[in-house]
Amino acid sequence: MDMQVSFLDRLFESGLLIETGVDGLYGRSGQFEDVITAFERLIDRVGGADGAEAIRFPPGMNRAYFEASGYMKSFPQLAGTVHSFCGNDHDHMSLLQCMEEGGDWTKEQKATDITLTPAACYPLYPTVAKRGPISMDGGLFDLQSYCFRHEPSKDPARQQLFRMREYVCMGTEAHVTTFRQTWMDRGVEMMKSIGLEVEIDVANDPFFGRAGRLMANNQRDQNLKFELLIPVTSQANKTACMSFNYHQDAFGQKWGLTLADGSTAFTACVGFGLERIALALFAQHGLDTSQWPEHVRKTLWG
Amino acid sequence: MDMQVSFLDRLFESGLLIETGVDGLYGRSGQFEDVITAFERLIDRVGGADGAEAIRFPPGMNRAYFEASGYMKSFPQLAGTVHSFCGNDHDHMSLLQCMEEGGDWTKEQKATDITLTPAACYPLYPTVAKRGPISMDGGLFDLQSYCFRHEPSKDPARQQLFRMREYVCMGTEAHVTTFRQTWMDRGVEMMKSIGLEVEIDVANDPFFGRAGRLMANNQRDQNLKFELLIPVTSQANKTACMSFNYHQDAFGQKWGLTLADGSTAFTACVGFGLERIALALFAQHGLDTSQWPEHVRKTLWG
Repeated sequence: MDMQVSFLDRLFESGLLIETGVDGLYGRSGQFEDVITAFERLIDRVGGADGAEAIRFPPGMNRAYFEASGYMKSFPQLAGTVHSFCGNDHDHMSLLQCMEEGGDWTKEQKATDITLTPAACYPLYPTVAKRGPISMDGGLFDLQSYCFRHEPSKDPARQQLFRMREYVCMGTEAHVTTFRQTWMDRGVEMMKSIGLEVEIDVANDPFFGRAGRLMANNQRDQNLKFELLIPVTSQANKTACMSFNYHQDAFGQKWGLTLADGSTAFTACVGFGLERIALALFAQHGLDTSQWPEHVRKTLWG
Repeated sequence: MDMQVSFLDRLFESGLLIETGVDGLYGRSGQFEDVITAFERLIDRVGGADGAEAIRFPPGMNRAYFEASGYMKSFPQLAGTVHSFCGNDHDHMSLLQCMEEGGDWTKEQKATDITLTPAACYPLYPTVAKRGPISMDGGLFDLQSYCFRHEPSKDPARQQLFRMREYVCMGTEAHVTTFRQTWMDRGVEMMKSIGLEVEIDVANDPFFGRAGRLMANNQRDQNLKFELLIPVTSQANKTACMSFNYHQDAFGQKWGLTLADGSTAFTACVGFGLERIALALFAQHGLDTSQWPEHVRKTLWG
């Protein structure tokens, strides 16, 4: 924890991250963004030949899809719903009076049709399902968006609003498990190429509550989730900078994703935590990118 | 209105925009994103020599700053607050039961410390104020973020989540009014260089309610806001694709922005509606970028 605060303070002092008064909500400097942009170009080079369809969703998604996803069963504490004022002139005057008196004006806000996106791939599954059956060659999608998770923290690697780049594969069981293994191998090579020390380990999601602990154990036992770990603020508690998720046919069943032969599609996704990878680079190579090792600079900026 | 629906349908059919089931909330194809990226490079080329400090805020901001901004006085209907579940295991079971029964589970969500960003520059003013006095040479900032406005619409140029690129200038009255005029001239030239027919007109913001109409008139009378208009779905009702705002010393006073000589800073900002500009290009030149006029392609992609 002390190491996390100390690293966060150094990031603020250097100007790479900019305080906003809320833990886990930060501005980014131009230099910080240059690292993210360069790393995304590296992803493009590694994954480009696969011919994924690029889609960019905004940072919010249809609340009806969010509800159907089951996210509130598993991670209710992390979700963010978007609420707005829907009143008339008179309600507006009451609202301003409430604000003036320091009252809780937010209680009168009404939920809109939008929730914040919890992971870049959430809006994809219902979108693809509407298109009809997936070719037997499988479907491959390239996504990136800001994601929200309500977990205020002084660990700079645990932000409330952060970007996730993802590839999502839909197809037969063999197809999507091969896809996941390919990206586990690529991920390790990519991180080595930018001078980061990595390990891959089986993992589980932060499911909520007592029942959630059973789901977490189940997920680990079945090797459904792997993470690529890199030391950012601690050698002992490494940070997950990529995750490799195999959903079996659970999302296929939930969203009605079928293959051309009528069978239910299997799915898998690999995600890059872009801010975490940038932070891992700053932690490993220092806060001034011009001083990074030559081979790292060459890989990122050519 | 018919023209708006028809253009939106063509955008969906071509795959440039992707339906999500919520009006004003769309995915973007790779080709759509390429246009945004290319136009941002054009902005960089035009504005780059000015030496603005680049800052990228996430799509959410500190609610305390949002409250202090006065946005809820002027545009309560457009704002979005972010709410989360803050209960225990027992509350979670009630929530899931409410969802199962089709009830309104969102009523139990509690406001977090975060609101969605209404315009890219909102988080900037308190950030700069904390740094202390601004040099007499002025401050210049380059911003971009997703912004939220709760105004569901079938007009593709009126989206609920969209990107705004902004330059913000802080300094003396002469400095910031010159900045604004410079960008009005540059904006017209930029749009001409990509084959778009433009006009600039005095404008006002969509202030809420009866009192808001007075504020709107006041803003127009004082020439505080200009907009660069381009036909997107209609020649008669053109779309504002850039805005040029002079705040006098109102933001300087509100946030305590001072110059090195102790005087209150004046501020101005110019904003590019990135989705609107991309849509104007597709409306003018067609939905296939490979068929756009050679001089437009050359300006955007070199």
